[in-house]
Amino acid sequence: MSEIKVSPLAPAVFPAVSGVAGVRLATAAAGIRYSGRDDVMLAELPSGSSVAGVFTRSLCTAAPVDWCKHALAASSGRGRAIIVNSGNANAFTGAAGYAAAVHTAESVARTLGAPAHEVLVASTGVIGEDLPVERIDAVLGTLVTGLSAAGPNGWEAAANAIGTTDTFPKGASAPVPGTSAHVAGIAKGSGMIAPDMATMLAFVFTDLAMDAQTAQQCLAASVEKSFNRITVDSDTSTSDTVLLAATGTSGQPATLHMADFEDALDAVTMDLAHQIVRDGEGATKFVAVTVTGAAGDDAAQAIARTVADSPLVKTALAASDANWGRIVAAVGKAGQRADRDRLAIWIGDEQCAAGGVPKSGYREERATEHLLGDDIELRVDVGVGEGEATVWTCDLTHGYIDINAGYRT
Amino acid sequence: MSEIKVSPLAPAVFPAVSGVAGVRLATAAAGIRYSGRDDVMLAELPSGSSVAGVFTRSLCTAAPVDWCKHALAASSGRGRAIIVNSGNANAFTGAAGYAAAVHTAESVARTLGAPAHEVLVASTGVIGEDLPVERIDAVLGTLVTGLSAAGPNGWEAAANAIGTTDTFPKGASAPVPGTSAHVAGIAKGSGMIAPDMATMLAFVFTDLAMDAQTAQQCLAASVEKSFNRITVDSDTSTSDTVLLAATGTSGQPATLHMADFEDALDAVTMDLAHQIVRDGEGATKFVAVTVTGAAGDDAAQAIARTVADSPLVKTALAASDANWGRIVAAVGKAGQRADRDRLAIWIGDEQCAAGGVPKSGYREERATEHLLGDDIELRVDVGVGEGEATVWTCDLTHGYIDINAGYRT
Repeated sequence: MSEIKVSPLAPAVFPAVSGVAGVRLATAAAGIRYSGRDDVMLAELPSGSSVAGVFTRSLCTAAPVDWCKHALAASSGRGRAIIVNSGNANAFTGAAGYAAAVHTAESVARTLGAPAHEVLVASTGVIGEDLPVERIDAVLGTLVTGLSAAGPNGWEAAANAIGTTDTFPKGASAPVPGTSAHVAGIAKGSGMIAPDMATMLAFVFTDLAMDAQTAQQCLAASVEKSFNRITVDSDTSTSDTVLLAATGTSGQPATLHMADFEDALDAVTMDLAHQIVRDGEGATKFVAVTVTGAAGDDAAQAIARTVADSPLVKTALAASDANWGRIVAAVGKAGQRADRDRLAIWIGDEQCAAGGVPKSGYREERATEHLLGDDIELRVDVGVGEGEATVWTCDLTHGYIDINAGYRT
Repeated sequence: MSEIKVSPLAPAVFPAVSGVAGVRLATAAAGIRYSGRDDVMLAELPSGSSVAGVFTRSLCTAAPVDWCKHALAASSGRGRAIIVNSGNANAFTGAAGYAAAVHTAESVARTLGAPAHEVLVASTGVIGEDLPVERIDAVLGTLVTGLSAAGPNGWEAAANAIGTTDTFPKGASAPVPGTSAHVAGIAKGSGMIAPDMATMLAFVFTDLAMDAQTAQQCLAASVEKSFNRITVDSDTSTSDTVLLAATGTSGQPATLHMADFEDALDAVTMDLAHQIVRDGEGATKFVAVTVTGAAGDDAAQAIARTVADSPLVKTALAASDANWGRIVAAVGKAGQRADRDRLAIWIGDEQCAAGGVPKSGYREERATEHLLGDDIELRVDVGVGEGEATVWTCDLTHGYIDINAGYRT
């Protein structure tokens, strides 16, 4: 197995994520699986914060997902803390696994003097191994002592602590215009990024004030446009979790700034989602697949996803090979209406196909030139309607095999 | 790109495929794409032969598929010849592509003195390039002169001529008990092997006598159990074609030997289907994924296919890594009913999980030992019903990337 290096698509530096008033962060090294790095992150929220969650649609959910759903219902969307560990997903661990999630929430709650159901828990890593909760317990004191108002360094440390096969920490923030408030978030994920949520965790914060229902509606809508539009390898995780916490510390109500808040939230979730694709296991190309002319937006999304998930398309992209015939094959298998004899395909600005045949005057060298870059745009018009969608993915390379044929060893 | 070698899962020698009375075969080198090898195959059938066909469900069918559907309807399932070229799929070639398929059928028909709609055409290879029909025309004389009764060498030459990225020729045969008749077939395919037919061509012959309707029913049922149960990379081709030709030359009617014929046909289609998986691009493991306890057989098949298509499962298999957590994740994303807390998983004979948790006393070294072999059995019981299905696949290795990131160049 070759050594894992930072993704060539990684940003040069961790972005200067703005603090969100009221959020305090800490990280610690519990040695759950990794050594020589922090693997637990604690985010403390001020009393009265609202929390919303969107979770994996997997039928084999991990215990922390079950806990979060229960806790958010029991607390009516109130939250005082989020605790996250990497290295062990606490998934497929049965009743003992659920007890471990509850224990972790209770331990944090006791330490902070909060109700247990106001503590959200997330775990990511290997499936089917018992979570060593005593190692998390052992660092709780360190975590609470270490809590400090979230500044740029704190966000980066938190993003690092929640990573598994990630090759760079992921963070993003945006101001909410017309207010002093911000939206800021961190995420992890690079493999098992798939239809309807990725193996990913993302934690987004704002210091606007909003009720839990508003937070839930905004988060669900934003996730649909961002995290649910990315795919690395079509695999869905048992643990996918996105939480939005609103501290209200800015004193400004979201209701007076709804459109601006939604834009800021979308900017942050989209930025984090794209960073996850840019850290796709083995990725060397960031690829936007846009489908137009479909029967509807859902049909367009299904076709775009089929193209984005096709191993043959992804390997051609890895080789900068303008093999658009593989795009045709993917469109054909998507099971959505498409008019073979009106199909049009673009690689970057170069149109390869029109009216169901190779386009006259198509310059393959122009398409290849575009594919030699690392920011790729593919577009397909399927010729039957007005539906449109974009899905983001990466190429499929030897690096993916290296990482996934050796993850546990 | 590393050099392509014969699959480690290939049979030691081409099987001794029995002749089918009445079938004559020939091959020739037309230089359509490849040099130094035969790339066109002609199979001549005696007058009055029945032919049945099963085709890709892709919405972007290749021209030869459209022609075959038309021809079989026009001839009421009569066939005098099958002509196949490799190197160019004649797909996404519009009206000119259809004209090329018609032209090829007409040329063969004229040479053999048969109606054009009794000539079936198949093409496999690159998509979106015009088929150079004049090169096929140029070798028609050679082909017809070369026709000879199908013996073992003839079957092997025919299997070689229709291959593209195949690393070994694929053939199989079986006697029909109680008769002098046989079922024999050849196939090609190694990549783009996917849900509902693979990028594959298969041509199966018998010298039993049967009407076209019987042939169609038997073929459809047999394909459902064989070619539609294999997946290499979840990609579906525009060109998938399976034809069954019954020459009747043995003088024995299939209707008197139906069960024996169906068994022989199933044996041949299953054997060919498994050979295609064994030639899966980059494959080093042949993998049977069996799902039991599903809500129904269709649900079991959907779950088995999701496991078999999971890149994370396939890369773990490549590494002989008993990472059964990835199987849990795949079951969870399949979208079919499964009881997480009753899930049981076996790798070979070793049970890894029971009742939704790692099985007490699970010996990972036994699972690993099984995975170090090249014939792998995975079994999952999802604990909700009686549905069962098996899907066959292979592992995902660096070899797949090598082959598909360099196919056209």
